[in-house]
Amino acid sequence: MSEKMAEVLRYVESNGDAALERLCDLLRIPSISTQKHHSADCRKAAGWLADELRGLGFTASLREVSWAEPGHPMVVGHDEANEEKLQSGQTHVLFYGHYDVQPTDPEVLWNTDPFKPCLKETDDGRKVIVARGASDDKGQVMTFIEACRAWKAVHGELPVAVSFLLEGEEESGGENLLPFLKANLEELKADVALICDTAMPDRKTPAITTSLRGTVAEEIELVAACQDLHSGMYGNAAANPAFLLCQIISGLRDEKGRVTLPGFYDGVTEPDEQVRAQWRALYPDDAALLEGVGLSQAAGERGFSAIEQTWCRPSFEVNGLTGGYQDDGFKTIIPARASAKLSFRLVPGQDPLKIREAFRAYVRAALPEDVDAVFTSHGASPGFAVNGESPFLLATLEALSSEWGQRAVMTGCGGSIPVAEEIREALGMDALMVGFAQADDRIHSPNEQYGLDSFFHGIRSWVRILAALAR
Amino acid sequence: MSEKMAEVLRYVESNGDAALERLCDLLRIPSISTQKHHSADCRKAAGWLADELRGLGFTASLREVSWAEPGHPMVVGHDEANEEKLQSGQTHVLFYGHYDVQPTDPEVLWNTDPFKPCLKETDDGRKVIVARGASDDKGQVMTFIEACRAWKAVHGELPVAVSFLLEGEEESGGENLLPFLKANLEELKADVALICDTAMPDRKTPAITTSLRGTVAEEIELVAACQDLHSGMYGNAAANPAFLLCQIISGLRDEKGRVTLPGFYDGVTEPDEQVRAQWRALYPDDAALLEGVGLSQAAGERGFSAIEQTWCRPSFEVNGLTGGYQDDGFKTIIPARASAKLSFRLVPGQDPLKIREAFRAYVRAALPEDVDAVFTSHGASPGFAVNGESPFLLATLEALSSEWGQRAVMTGCGGSIPVAEEIREALGMDALMVGFAQADDRIHSPNEQYGLDSFFHGIRSWVRILAALAR
Repeated sequence: MSEKMAEVLRYVESNGDAALERLCDLLRIPSISTQKHHSADCRKAAGWLADELRGLGFTASLREVSWAEPGHPMVVGHDEANEEKLQSGQTHVLFYGHYDVQPTDPEVLWNTDPFKPCLKETDDGRKVIVARGASDDKGQVMTFIEACRAWKAVHGELPVAVSFLLEGEEESGGENLLPFLKANLEELKADVALICDTAMPDRKTPAITTSLRGTVAEEIELVAACQDLHSGMYGNAAANPAFLLCQIISGLRDEKGRVTLPGFYDGVTEPDEQVRAQWRALYPDDAALLEGVGLSQAAGERGFSAIEQTWCRPSFEVNGLTGGYQDDGFKTIIPARASAKLSFRLVPGQDPLKIREAFRAYVRAALPEDVDAVFTSHGASPGFAVNGESPFLLATLEALSSEWGQRAVMTGCGGSIPVAEEIREALGMDALMVGFAQADDRIHSPNEQYGLDSFFHGIRSWVRILAALAR
Repeated sequence: MSEKMAEVLRYVESNGDAALERLCDLLRIPSISTQKHHSADCRKAAGWLADELRGLGFTASLREVSWAEPGHPMVVGHDEANEEKLQSGQTHVLFYGHYDVQPTDPEVLWNTDPFKPCLKETDDGRKVIVARGASDDKGQVMTFIEACRAWKAVHGELPVAVSFLLEGEEESGGENLLPFLKANLEELKADVALICDTAMPDRKTPAITTSLRGTVAEEIELVAACQDLHSGMYGNAAANPAFLLCQIISGLRDEKGRVTLPGFYDGVTEPDEQVRAQWRALYPDDAALLEGVGLSQAAGERGFSAIEQTWCRPSFEVNGLTGGYQDDGFKTIIPARASAKLSFRLVPGQDPLKIREAFRAYVRAALPEDVDAVFTSHGASPGFAVNGESPFLLATLEALSSEWGQRAVMTGCGGSIPVAEEIREALGMDALMVGFAQADDRIHSPNEQYGLDSFFHGIRSWVRILAALAR
C-alpha cells in the first residue's frame, strides 16, 4: 500500500464522527419519491447533496427532468480538476447513487421515527444506524462522498477524474433516468460507472454484483358493477372483481412455480455450473438465505435453490392487494372494484416490453363482458450482466480484497438497478456495482438499518478503489 | 274493507309528515354495530326505540346480551293489552326488526352525510329518503311501529296481541340472538313472527319472502415472513402470502362456477319447476336483475339464471382483500401477511358448521410449511324456507294484495336473515318476511335510500295485515 493512500485511510479513521453526523443530516430529510406530498423533501435532499459536493470542490447543480412523473431533480457534479486530469489521460469515473427512499408504512412497526436516525447496538453487538434510507441508498451514497472528502482533505485532489449523478426517482419507476442520460451523453460519459446500491453476501466477504434482475411493475384495477353490491342480494349472479383478480393472479404461476405467460422464459439461460458452485459455497442451503426472515424453504420455481431463484431466475410477485371491505368486522358486499400491484423480475435476455404486453393480453383474455381492467405501468427494465472483460473489474476486486482481508467475489442480485443497464445502453460503458449493505438491513421494511462497519469499511474501500483505478 | 280499518288508513294519510320526522330522528343515530367506537350509538338507537314503544302503550326495555361480541342490547316490548287479548283467544304476533346499520365506507362516494337523512327526488320522479339504514332496516322497522301507532290513535287498541323484538347486531354476526331467544322462550313465544327486512321484486308487486340464504362468513389471515421483504432480494424464494391467498381463493370455484369444497352441495335441492316459472315471469332475463347495477350476465354457477343463482343456489364470494402496499405508486415488497374476508351463502339443507370446517380444512391443506393461517368467524347460519302450510300465510298475502292492487307473490331472497331460522328453531313458530324495500335502494352501499312509497304503503300494509291476522 502506498504511503499516500495510507494517509487517506488514517484520515477516515480520525474523522468518523463528523462523517456519521453528515449522514444523519441527510437521513432526516423524508425524501419518499413515490408520494407526491414529499416532493419538496426530495428537492431538499437533492439540494443538500449538491451543497456537499460544492463544499468538496465540485461544480454541482440540480437538473430538472420532466419526461415523466414524478420529476424529482437529478444532482450532477464534476470535480473542478476533471479537465486537467482528463488531459493528462487519467481515468474518469461516474458515480451513481440515489437520494430517494421507500415509503415507511406500516409506521406502527417502526421502533423509532423513520426520519430521526438513531444509533443502536444489535443483539450480536453490531453498531447500526436506524432510519429509512440508512442502507438504501443514502448510507451507501455517503461512503463514496466521504472517500472523496478524505482524498481532497489529505492531498487536495482525487486520484482520478470523478463525476456524480445522484437520482431522486430510483424507488418510483425512474423513468426520467434513461432520457436524461441520453440528453446529456457528452457530459456524463466516462470510462466506467461505479454504483453503490447493493449488498454483501455476508458480513466479511466483499463483492461486486455482476448480475441484476430487471422489473416489469404493473398495477391493475378490475371494475365491475357501478357500486358495491349486497353480497346476499347479488352473490353468485354479479361479477366479483376481487374473486376474478385472485383467479388472474393465481393463473400466473403453474404448479411447478413457473410463470405461465407465453414466451416468458424466451432468452433465459441456465446458470453456469461453476457459478452455481460458488453460490452454493456462500449459501449451502435455502435456510441460509431465508432463516433470517423467518422462512425455511424456497417457495418459487422448483429445481433451483433459494439463491438461484433470486439471483438468476425470473419471477412473479404480488406486491399489494386491495378490494372491498378492509376494516374491523365484516361487510357483506361484492366490491365494485379490486386492484393489485404486481411485478415480474427479469434476468438478462428477457424483453420487458414484450412481457408487459404478454401480461396485459393475458389479463384482457380473462375478462368477462361485465368487467373492465385499467392498467398502470410502474416501470419496465431489463436484467443486466457485467461484461466479464471490463478492464476495471479486476482492479476493483483487488482493492476490495485488500480492504476486507478476504477475497472479493462476484455475485448476483435479485433486485433491479435499471441504471446499470441504462448506463450501458445510453453511455456505452460498464457499470461496477459495489455495495456494503447486509441482508438483514431491512431495506424497504420497517426499522431499516446500516451498519457502522458497512459505512466505514465502505468509505475505506472507495479510498482504495479510487487509487486502484488511477492510471 | 271494514270501516274500522278504513279509519286507520285515513289516519295514516293525514299524519305522514310526523311519521317521516320520527324516521329521520332514528336515522340520525349512527348505529354501526360492527365498529366498536359506535357502541354508544347502538345503545342510543335502542333507547330511542324503547321510548317510542312506551309512548304507544307498550312495556319496553333494553335487554343486555353478553354471550358474544359486540353485545348491543335487544329491545323487547309488549302491548299492555296483550294479556287481555290472549285470554280472549286473540292471535299473538312477534315483530322482529333491527336497529343497527352497515359501515359507511367509502365515505367519498356519498353525496350527502350518511347520518343526515335528506329527501330527494330520483330521476324517475320517485321521492326517497337518503341515509344509511333508511331501507336496511330502520325505515322498514318504522312502517310497523307507525301502523301500531295509527291503530292505537284511532281505536285505542290493536286488532291482535303484539310484541316487539328489535336487534342491534344483525349487521355484525348476530351471535347473541339465538341464545337470547332460547333464554327468553316463554316471553317471546307467539303464534307467528313478522319480519320486515326484505325487498319487493319490483315497484308494484308485494311479496312474502319464503326462502332465504344462510351465511358462513370467515376472515383468514396468512402470515409468512417476520417482516415485509424486498421483492428483488427475496422474490421467487420467499413464500408470498398474497399470492397464496389468491391461489386459495381461486381454487374455491371450478370452471363451471361451482364451489369446490367437498360436500358443499350436500342437501341442496333443485328448485321446483313451477317456482322457476313464476320467477322467470318476474325476471325474464339476467339483465332484469343486473342492469340496474351496471352488469349484464350471471357470473356464477352455470345452468342457472341470475335470479336462481341468488335465490336458490349457494355461492362463494370475496368480500374484502388486503395485503402489502396499497398507497399511491409502487413498493417492491413481498408482504409478510395478507388477509381476506370471505363468505358462503347457503340454501336450506346445507349445514353451516360442516361447511365452515370444510373451508378451514381446505385452507390448512393448502399451506406450505412457512405459512400460517389465522381464522376468524363472522357468523354461521343456515338457509331457511317458510312452511307452506302456515295458517297466517294466506291472510297476509291477501292483505298485501288488497293494499297494492296487485296479487302478492312468494319470492326467494339471496340475503341472510338468520332470525327467521332461529325463531323457528328456538320458538317453534313460523316467520313471515314481508318487506317494502326496492332493489335500487343501495342497501350496504353509499347513498342508501328508502322510497316514500315503500314507507307509506308499508305502514298501510301492516295496518291491513294486523286486521287480517285477528281471529
